[in-house]
Amino acid sequence: MAPSLVNNGDIKSSPATGRVASVYSEVQTSRIDHSLPLPSVLRNPFKIVDGPVSSSAGNSGEIAKLFPNLFGQPSAMLVPNEVDTLSSDLKLKIGVVLSGGQAPGGHNVISGIFDYLQDRVKGSTLFGFKGGPAGIMKCKYVELTTDYIYPYRNQGGFDMICSGRDKIETPEQFKQAQETALKLDLDGLVVIGGDDSNTNACLLAENFRSNNIRTRVIGCPKTIDGDLKCKEVPTSFGFDTACKIYAEMIGNVMIDARSTGKYYHFVRLMGRSASHITLECALQTHPNITIIGEEVAAKKLSLKNVTDYIVDVVCKRAELGYNYGVILIPEGLIDFIPEVQALIAELNEILAHEVVDEDGLWKRKLTDQSLKLFEFLPQAIQEQLMLERDPHGNVQVAKIETEKMLIQMVETELEKKKQEGVYKRQFKGQSHFFGYEGRCGLPTNFDASYCYALGYTAGALLHSGKTGLISSVGNLSTPVEEWTASGTALTSLMDVERRHGKFKPVIKKAMVELEGAPFKKFASMRDEWALKNCYISPGPIQFNGPTSTAVNHTLLLELGAQA
Amino acid sequence: MAPSLVNNGDIKSSPATGRVASVYSEVQTSRIDHSLPLPSVLRNPFKIVDGPVSSSAGNSGEIAKLFPNLFGQPSAMLVPNEVDTLSSDLKLKIGVVLSGGQAPGGHNVISGIFDYLQDRVKGSTLFGFKGGPAGIMKCKYVELTTDYIYPYRNQGGFDMICSGRDKIETPEQFKQAQETALKLDLDGLVVIGGDDSNTNACLLAENFRSNNIRTRVIGCPKTIDGDLKCKEVPTSFGFDTACKIYAEMIGNVMIDARSTGKYYHFVRLMGRSASHITLECALQTHPNITIIGEEVAAKKLSLKNVTDYIVDVVCKRAELGYNYGVILIPEGLIDFIPEVQALIAELNEILAHEVVDEDGLWKRKLTDQSLKLFEFLPQAIQEQLMLERDPHGNVQVAKIETEKMLIQMVETELEKKKQEGVYKRQFKGQSHFFGYEGRCGLPTNFDASYCYALGYTAGALLHSGKTGLISSVGNLSTPVEEWTASGTALTSLMDVERRHGKFKPVIKKAMVELEGAPFKKFASMRDEWALKNCYISPGPIQFNGPTSTAVNHTLLLELGAQA
Repeated sequence: MAPSLVNNGDIKSSPATGRVASVYSEVQTSRIDHSLPLPSVLRNPFKIVDGPVSSSAGNSGEIAKLFPNLFGQPSAMLVPNEVDTLSSDLKLKIGVVLSGGQAPGGHNVISGIFDYLQDRVKGSTLFGFKGGPAGIMKCKYVELTTDYIYPYRNQGGFDMICSGRDKIETPEQFKQAQETALKLDLDGLVVIGGDDSNTNACLLAENFRSNNIRTRVIGCPKTIDGDLKCKEVPTSFGFDTACKIYAEMIGNVMIDARSTGKYYHFVRLMGRSASHITLECALQTHPNITIIGEEVAAKKLSLKNVTDYIVDVVCKRAELGYNYGVILIPEGLIDFIPEVQALIAELNEILAHEVVDEDGLWKRKLTDQSLKLFEFLPQAIQEQLMLERDPHGNVQVAKIETEKMLIQMVETELEKKKQEGVYKRQFKGQSHFFGYEGRCGLPTNFDASYCYALGYTAGALLHSGKTGLISSVGNLSTPVEEWTASGTALTSLMDVERRHGKFKPVIKKAMVELEGAPFKKFASMRDEWALKNCYISPGPIQFNGPTSTAVNHTLLLELGAQA
Repeated sequence: MAPSLVNNGDIKSSPATGRVASVYSEVQTSRIDHSLPLPSVLRNPFKIVDGPVSSSAGNSGEIAKLFPNLFGQPSAMLVPNEVDTLSSDLKLKIGVVLSGGQAPGGHNVISGIFDYLQDRVKGSTLFGFKGGPAGIMKCKYVELTTDYIYPYRNQGGFDMICSGRDKIETPEQFKQAQETALKLDLDGLVVIGGDDSNTNACLLAENFRSNNIRTRVIGCPKTIDGDLKCKEVPTSFGFDTACKIYAEMIGNVMIDARSTGKYYHFVRLMGRSASHITLECALQTHPNITIIGEEVAAKKLSLKNVTDYIVDVVCKRAELGYNYGVILIPEGLIDFIPEVQALIAELNEILAHEVVDEDGLWKRKLTDQSLKLFEFLPQAIQEQLMLERDPHGNVQVAKIETEKMLIQMVETELEKKKQEGVYKRQFKGQSHFFGYEGRCGLPTNFDASYCYALGYTAGALLHSGKTGLISSVGNLSTPVEEWTASGTALTSLMDVERRHGKFKPVIKKAMVELEGAPFKKFASMRDEWALKNCYISPGPIQFNGPTSTAVNHTLLLELGAQA
């Protein structure tokens, strides 16, 4: 029996950073030295083969105008070769930046870039820009060395160099970025981020190219939300780990619900824009009810519809003798409901211009539909809508605790059913929000390997002089050995949106496809899950043994590797 | 790479129960066949050696009167012997019941009893009473067979037979229990529960003995709260697993706090009566601030004192450049603050008898101290205190979200400091409550083995005809092989409390001892943790490899096995 959870052994540490591996937990320590497998193509000599000319996801004319230097770039595939074709005499200077919210595996992308340079371009230098894109603009960086990186291998979080949400978008900001690129004499820059950050990475690549700055820019797909993906980029990193952490908690709550027999647990899950996390957690755990935002939007469901659906299942379960259950709700649910959007828009208008009188005369300004919805909302939510506003005076939709709101609405409707004699049990809701717990967990073996390969590939792409590509690792349903490595033209993922009268390039968020395999599998099973108890408890993520290599359902279903 | 998280293999299932092992997750499946080590003394022939006559924890005269048949019983120690001394010709009929809240490992206690009977008293029968003590009174039971138990081995939850919070305490209820004992011809009954349930187990043992019913009763120490323990019973089962689940989440939130750099996370942890869980999680993760209820009570701190302490650390950290942190709060904090107790008592009185007028004239009924405290509370909490009442009209203290309350109070105080120019940063709080997630997780290897040994020992004690003892497994800082097994007289743990003019026996809850090793270790380190960032991320519970056998700090420190 180990004497302690804390390893006090003689572990290398990086005193320059916040991390000291000597006070790591045993599991953290054991992960540092977990050896990362590389795809065969990355372990052996390779050459880079260009694919056909690319286009864009939409409005190719506009994209071509926005990216005159980069539009149409082919993808670049790494393929095995007798000998290495890239010069190993070069010494590269590469920068790396973490952009946006945390996702498990970010440190391994950096390790992958570093190890590529160590393995293949000896004498190169890797700079880490601190605190996100602002670090590029302010030229705030640290040189990443073996000792510096060591304690972060396979560890969660972004704290090696920290992240930030600033954007490089004004001419002045591009100027600052250029100055940094020149000052550090950068050959390349790796931007690790989501859809917005990768769009910006491409704008930066275009900007450097058009200003004859030799710094190349490569993106990497990061977001626990899972909404940055396409054919070439099968998943974003962090999604696998975050979903498994949430699913562990959901599984535990399910067993508790069944053991206790008297609570309905309403679990809100992180993910404002898309419901991938909620869908994946449902596939892993088989809850009684799962609300998918994209379906709510497609079917134009109202809040009353959603409430009625839950009430209906609760009543049917009561007849079967089950007075408990588990319900998953995506964080962004409210954003998917058109009538709620309308109400909020009207409230923003009224709160900005009208006096909100105590007698409620102000409500006359609401449209009929919005008034009806407002009156349907629980009082606490009404107050939240009226009181909590952001600095611009707008209602703070993000602050609405949807799970608590639904509990109250279901309670109210069930009370009516009780009066009617249709429902005879006592309904008790318990609310949960799982969010921050999942963003910085220790990456699963999948995310650890995937990120390492993404970083290693990014290194290879920069080494070969590519720019404006996103690191793309594929064939993910096979063993790591067989994974493919390539770069995909960022412009090929883009469309335009019109904002303030101007076309802006965007990588469209990948939403849950109602015709996609993951949703269809869920839809085919949800009625059974609603009334029977098919709960699955995934348990804690394992790093060793046969259960440590499982991949999330969403990815396998999308790849056709699971029925 | 495994094709799926769900094992669809040919796994035995127990169709009689809610569990179907064929739809278990891979981790659940892998746990079923995890082989449980038994202490050497339980694996080999043993004899039972009685210790000296016992007394009680206090008021032995009253305990002797309450338990005329059982008081003074010696403890019973299992010691190795050349041959087994207990008859294997008997066939025993044993009942088992789960009482109170869920705790990881309960299913393994039952497996331990079952396997004892299978191994040593072949042909015996084990009945599981369903839904807690009510199952005994109503004679609702199921016969537990190999197939029935199989899918629950090493699994979390109490759903094999479910639990309940009923008590057997009135003469009528004791009568019902007697009828069940006679009807099923029970040789013994194992009561798996916390302090209250074990007190009741002893009362039942006394009742059976005084009515010449041969059914013996043995208790087992269960509660994630960790507040049922004494010299002979070093820990209650479930505490180890629950704390590790919470600590995993806290560790993740810590890495997130450090990576993001802008949030103070206020984490409320389950445990109404004692703060053991909060203390253990602090020892595992090293948060910046930890509030221990017992210390707040001992030092008679006010809510303002607690707030000021947090504000002080936030300001000092701001000076060091840290605008983030993690703060642990025990669920029962409010119960430890005398002034809050006084306010609630006054509110209960006022709400029962007075009209609460909108102008707040009713507040004149409050004492000065309570009025001051009430005005100090955030408005949302004031409203919660006024509006949310239980069926008896009392304020529902349990519903107060202490973590949100503290965030608001800290916010208000920091705003004042800002006006004074003492604090210059922006404070943002994030609230969390970790509770239900920890009660039904897959038991750690420690809890799995500990519970199995507790159940196996309970079987041995019943086999040898003992009653009124609590199953006691000791020497827990050594490998399982060397653990000891015995039974401790339940009366020796008891004291009396006067309720409604009568003496009632109670097993006193074990609170956090301010002079105990766990608190002293915490106290010696907290100042460093407050200002430096010594975060440890324990990561997910591992079931394989060197990190899978760690034991919680509280236990090791109390046993003197950790410095």
